[in-house]
Amino acid sequence: MTSFPCMNAGSNESSYAKNSVVQKTVILKSRNILEKTIEDYAVKGFPECFKLADLGCSSGPNTLLVVTNIIKNVHAICKNKKQAAPEIQVFLNDLPDNDFNTVFKMVPPLLSNMENCFISGVPGSFYTRLFPSKSIHLVHSSYSVHWLSKVPDKLENNKGNIYMSKTSPPGVHEAYFNQFKKDFMKFLRLRSEEVIPNGRMVLTIVGRSGTDPTSKECCGLWELLVMSLQDMVAEGLLDEKDIDTFNLPLYTPCVDEVLAIVELEGSFKIDRWETSQVNWDTQDENEAKSVKSKGSSGKIVAMAVRSVTEPMLISHFGEACIDKLFERYVVHADDHLSREKTENFNIMISAKRK
Amino acid sequence: MTSFPCMNAGSNESSYAKNSVVQKTVILKSRNILEKTIEDYAVKGFPECFKLADLGCSSGPNTLLVVTNIIKNVHAICKNKKQAAPEIQVFLNDLPDNDFNTVFKMVPPLLSNMENCFISGVPGSFYTRLFPSKSIHLVHSSYSVHWLSKVPDKLENNKGNIYMSKTSPPGVHEAYFNQFKKDFMKFLRLRSEEVIPNGRMVLTIVGRSGTDPTSKECCGLWELLVMSLQDMVAEGLLDEKDIDTFNLPLYTPCVDEVLAIVELEGSFKIDRWETSQVNWDTQDENEAKSVKSKGSSGKIVAMAVRSVTEPMLISHFGEACIDKLFERYVVHADDHLSREKTENFNIMISAKRK
Repeated sequence: MTSFPCMNAGSNESSYAKNSVVQKTVILKSRNILEKTIEDYAVKGFPECFKLADLGCSSGPNTLLVVTNIIKNVHAICKNKKQAAPEIQVFLNDLPDNDFNTVFKMVPPLLSNMENCFISGVPGSFYTRLFPSKSIHLVHSSYSVHWLSKVPDKLENNKGNIYMSKTSPPGVHEAYFNQFKKDFMKFLRLRSEEVIPNGRMVLTIVGRSGTDPTSKECCGLWELLVMSLQDMVAEGLLDEKDIDTFNLPLYTPCVDEVLAIVELEGSFKIDRWETSQVNWDTQDENEAKSVKSKGSSGKIVAMAVRSVTEPMLISHFGEACIDKLFERYVVHADDHLSREKTENFNIMISAKRK
Repeated sequence: MTSFPCMNAGSNESSYAKNSVVQKTVILKSRNILEKTIEDYAVKGFPECFKLADLGCSSGPNTLLVVTNIIKNVHAICKNKKQAAPEIQVFLNDLPDNDFNTVFKMVPPLLSNMENCFISGVPGSFYTRLFPSKSIHLVHSSYSVHWLSKVPDKLENNKGNIYMSKTSPPGVHEAYFNQFKKDFMKFLRLRSEEVIPNGRMVLTIVGRSGTDPTSKECCGLWELLVMSLQDMVAEGLLDEKDIDTFNLPLYTPCVDEVLAIVELEGSFKIDRWETSQVNWDTQDENEAKSVKSKGSSGKIVAMAVRSVTEPMLISHFGEACIDKLFERYVVHADDHLSREKTENFNIMISAKRK
C-alpha cells in the first residue's frame, strides 16, 4: 500500500522533480534562518562528526540542495575560523514510497567534491522514531511538517469540500487543528529524543498569515481543485459522493499556533522565526530562474499541485480521471490568476533542544 | 552511467530478487560464524547504540535476512543475560544503481516488530569511504568482496576468455590477483578507518579450495558463459572481438591469499575462519526450501548467473542478445550438471579491528 503523502516519482512532466520550483524558492528564502542557525551552532564548535537529518527530503533537484547548502556553510565557517571541518553525516528521510533510487544516483557526483561527507537515506514516517537517541545535531525540514499523519477524524459532514473552506460546517477547522496539534506534538517529542541537547531544528511550514483558517492563502489551491472535481461531477465523470468522502491530510497553521505548540510540548526553545511569501506562479518570482519560457501560469500551478497530490488522488478517485481533472484545474487556475496575485505563506522556525 | 557490478533490479523472472537462492543458502551457512562473532562482542557488553553495516546488501529477500538475524541474535543474547537490548542502527550499503526503493518498502513491516532499530541505506562503492571515522561496530558482507573495483589491466591477451581459464595466457592470473590484492587492501584500510577499535568484520567471499586459480569450482560458471557466447559467435549473432574485449571484474581467492592480505594490511586480526560449499543447482540443497518445484537445473543456474551479470553483459554486448545468450547457457548448464556435481567454494572470515 502506498504511504501518503508521497510526491510523484520519476522525472516525467507531472513528476515532483519537474514541478518543485515553489519548493526551491522556499528553500532559497529560508537560507538566512538556516545559515544563522549554523553560525550559532559554530560558536561552541562543531562535533567531530556533525550529523544532520533532512525530513521529507523527497526526490528531485531540491533534495540535495539543502544538504549542499548546509555542508558548504559548515565548510565556509570552519575555513573562516581556520579550523578543520568536521566529518558530516547526512540522513535523508522520506516515506518508504519516496523515489530514493533517483536521489541516490545524484549522491556520488555531489560527494566527489566534498571530502568526509557521508549520505544515507532513511525510509519512514517522521511521525515515528527515525534515529537513535541523542544522535542528531541538526534537523531540517522544508514543506513537510504541514502534512498530517492521516486525514483527521470527524470530517464526515465536510461535504463538497476536500479541505477547510468557507462552506465547511462547524467542527471541521477544529478537527483539522486537533489533528495538527496531536501530530506536531508527536513530531516534537520524537525529535526531542533524537536530537542531542543544544541541537537545532529548522522547520519551514506552509501556513497562513492571519487567524482565519479558511483564508485564500492557505485554501485557494485546494478550492481550485474542488472546482475541478465538481466540473468532473457535472460532466458525469465522477460521483459527488467521491468528493464528499475525500479530505486532504494537511493543515496550514498560523504562527501563533506553531509557537504555542512548541512551547506546550516543551522540549525545544524557539530561537528565531521568520515568515515569507512565495508566489504560486513561479514565473512571477525572481528566484525561479529555472522557469525559462513564459507558459500558462495555470498550467504551472496545476502541475505543481498535481505533483504533490497525484498518488493520493489516484488512490481515492482512480487513475483514469487524473489527466482530465488537471485539464480543468488549468482553466480555473488561469482564470483565478488573471484576477488576483496568489501566494503561499511560509512559517520558518529555528529551535534549540533544551 | 551504470556502476558495476549491480544485480538485476525489480522482481521479474530474471531479477536478482527472484534468483538469489544460492546467496540465501550461503547466508544460512555463515550464520554460525556470525553468531559466534556477536557472542564474542557481547562478552564486554554492547554499546548504547550498536551500529552495523551490511556492504553489498543488494535488493531482494536476502537483503534484510542478515540484518534480521543479527538483530534477533543481539536481542536473544541480551534477554539471556537479563540486560536491556541496545538501540541498533543498520546501514545497508550497495552501489547507487542498486534498487534501494524495493528494499525500503520492506523496512516498515520489519521494524514494526523490532523496537529501537533504525535502518538506513548508503549508496556508494565499498572501495570508497562510506561511514564517519570510528563509527561502526560490526561490518558484514556476503558475496560482494570478490567483486573487483574494475576489470584488471593487462588482460588484452586473454582472448576467447572472460575470466581466468586454463587457456588463459601467462600473466592473466597475476593481473587478476594483483587487482584483488590492491582492492582488498584498500577495502580493509577504508573499513579500518570506519570500524571502532575491537569492532568486528564478518566477510563471506566466493573463492577456491586449492591453489589452482583456474579450477572448476571458481571458473566453471564463467566457462559455461564463454561457451554460450561462442555459440552466439558461431551463429553470427556476436562478433568474436566482443568476447576478446570482455573480462569479468571479479576474483575468486584461496584461503591463504585472503589470510595473507588481511595480515599484510595489518589493521584487523582474524579471529576465526571457515569454508563451505554450496551447490550451483539449488534444487540440490536441503536449505533451499524456497525452490518448490523441480525444474531444469540448467535454467536455475542460468538465471542465477544472469541475475548477477546482466547489467554488465548488456553494457558490453547490447540488450538484444541477452535472452538468446541465456537460452544457450541453459543447454550448456544442463549438459554440464548431468555429468558432474558443481559447487561454489565460500571463504568466511571473522576479523577484529586491532
